[in-house]
Amino acid sequence: MAITVVGSVAYDSIETPAGRRERCLGGAATYFSLAASYFCDVRVIAVVGEDFGPEQESVFKARNIDTQGIEHTAGKSFFWEGSYLENLNEAKTHNTELNVFAAFEPKIPDAYRDSEFLFLANIDPVLQRRVREQMPDVKLVAGDTMNYWINDHRPALLEVLKGLDMLLINDTEARVLGGDKNLVKAARAVMSLGPRFLVVKHGEYGATLFHGANAESGHSHTFRAPALPLEEVVDPTGAGDSFAGGFFGYLASQKQLTPGSLRRAMFYGSVMGSFACERFGTERLQEISRAQIDERFNLFRELTHLD
Amino acid sequence: MAITVVGSVAYDSIETPAGRRERCLGGAATYFSLAASYFCDVRVIAVVGEDFGPEQESVFKARNIDTQGIEHTAGKSFFWEGSYLENLNEAKTHNTELNVFAAFEPKIPDAYRDSEFLFLANIDPVLQRRVREQMPDVKLVAGDTMNYWINDHRPALLEVLKGLDMLLINDTEARVLGGDKNLVKAARAVMSLGPRFLVVKHGEYGATLFHGANAESGHSHTFRAPALPLEEVVDPTGAGDSFAGGFFGYLASQKQLTPGSLRRAMFYGSVMGSFACERFGTERLQEISRAQIDERFNLFRELTHLD
Repeated sequence: MAITVVGSVAYDSIETPAGRRERCLGGAATYFSLAASYFCDVRVIAVVGEDFGPEQESVFKARNIDTQGIEHTAGKSFFWEGSYLENLNEAKTHNTELNVFAAFEPKIPDAYRDSEFLFLANIDPVLQRRVREQMPDVKLVAGDTMNYWINDHRPALLEVLKGLDMLLINDTEARVLGGDKNLVKAARAVMSLGPRFLVVKHGEYGATLFHGANAESGHSHTFRAPALPLEEVVDPTGAGDSFAGGFFGYLASQKQLTPGSLRRAMFYGSVMGSFACERFGTERLQEISRAQIDERFNLFRELTHLD
Repeated sequence: MAITVVGSVAYDSIETPAGRRERCLGGAATYFSLAASYFCDVRVIAVVGEDFGPEQESVFKARNIDTQGIEHTAGKSFFWEGSYLENLNEAKTHNTELNVFAAFEPKIPDAYRDSEFLFLANIDPVLQRRVREQMPDVKLVAGDTMNYWINDHRPALLEVLKGLDMLLINDTEARVLGGDKNLVKAARAVMSLGPRFLVVKHGEYGATLFHGANAESGHSHTFRAPALPLEEVVDPTGAGDSFAGGFFGYLASQKQLTPGSLRRAMFYGSVMGSFACERFGTERLQEISRAQIDERFNLFRELTHLD
């Protein structure tokens, strides 16, 4: 099975208590793709500038990620600068330059059209919707967003949500989008906007999966995956996108969406998120093995299971 | 098996988004005792004033809690006033009156001396130590504390920690006591001060058990229990003490301390913490049944287990 993902491929300058990196390869679609590539075929739709060359391309190629849909254009790639000096759970953004993304018109390569899974990473909901409309036959659509779109572009976002099966966002975003401080009530409100499944990411505390049946049957359709207590969080950038890549990548590798596959997908999401934090940028995600992933999956089981 | 617990028996005035209650029965030892009473015999050491009468006493008696060690004295009982209007995870304290606790000299009734388990709830570490010294033969000692003692009474607290097998505190307290923002490193630092087992409570995100072997063998001696995503948190007062009561009460009901019993104890802690939040004060803890407790235990299993 193959996932098509649309989102940013970018450069990040990052400062954390562990150090600083200038202009390392980043972007939601990059983290997502690398994480998902350990589970299924991945195809990327994005736009990059003249600063994106063979060296960056090879990061995708080494993981067999299809980059036909990465459009090269004049100008500079998306750039983000942020730090986590006070709080590792939340980035402080110092600078965002949309650059080539400002005029992006996503086009779907023909070779991507048989993708059964579509992931709309965190970008302008107008772009998310255009991609969604060009891929009407996908089996399962998941997406991400952020407070900026929730607060300032709500009508466009609501259109996207109607077409989503799954939404993956963090606590604050869920509370703002659902309009309730209580997470269970906020989750129900978010699901009433479209997505049947909602994954709320809690940073170092893991993530919770809610799904629609929850409203009628109490807690029995809720699942909580832990995060790994890490001794050193080098760089949390991309942890949420890596969670999404592990989660959705694992689902794409499975024949059916079942309660069991969803639960395992939550664990694989946490596993990939934990790897992402261990080095700067995408360094760690480029070099792990499937065996290491499954070893960590078992660690998560041990961390949470009674027997 | 019996637990002796020393701590506050008090009156609380509480305001939450769900409403306000004036002078309801509270205090760490009260919540702890009620929660633990569903698992084992419980004996309380505390001091109360003339405002504590048969009505309050009957709350303990109804759960077969031994109150011989609750000393009645002239004056008013400990009083706390707080609110959770902005943040349900953290109380804002408006007023604390030590009252009769200011001159408390804990005495251990003879009938308590064969207790095999001792819990030192959150009070002045000088009092915790005096009780500990009067019960040298207990099999397992656990305790709680708070930032006030960690910051302003550190030498006295360090003496208490040396005599503890287990410490149960929240995230902020663990980071302050351990002197590290990273929870894993902070946990290791706290355990180097005495307790072999450290339970860090994360409020609505559950709790993590660390134990000493962790330092050498990576993550394999860490266990994470979730909290129940609750649709309505009426009053979080006493949730941490109720967690401690469920956790330590369950351990006291078991023949041996094993990896399995510790894991189940973490779940029972979360179960009792979740019940405590459902009504104001101790209302919910007074009226549950063991069957309801085990039903919720199974819900926690379902919430976290893959199969």
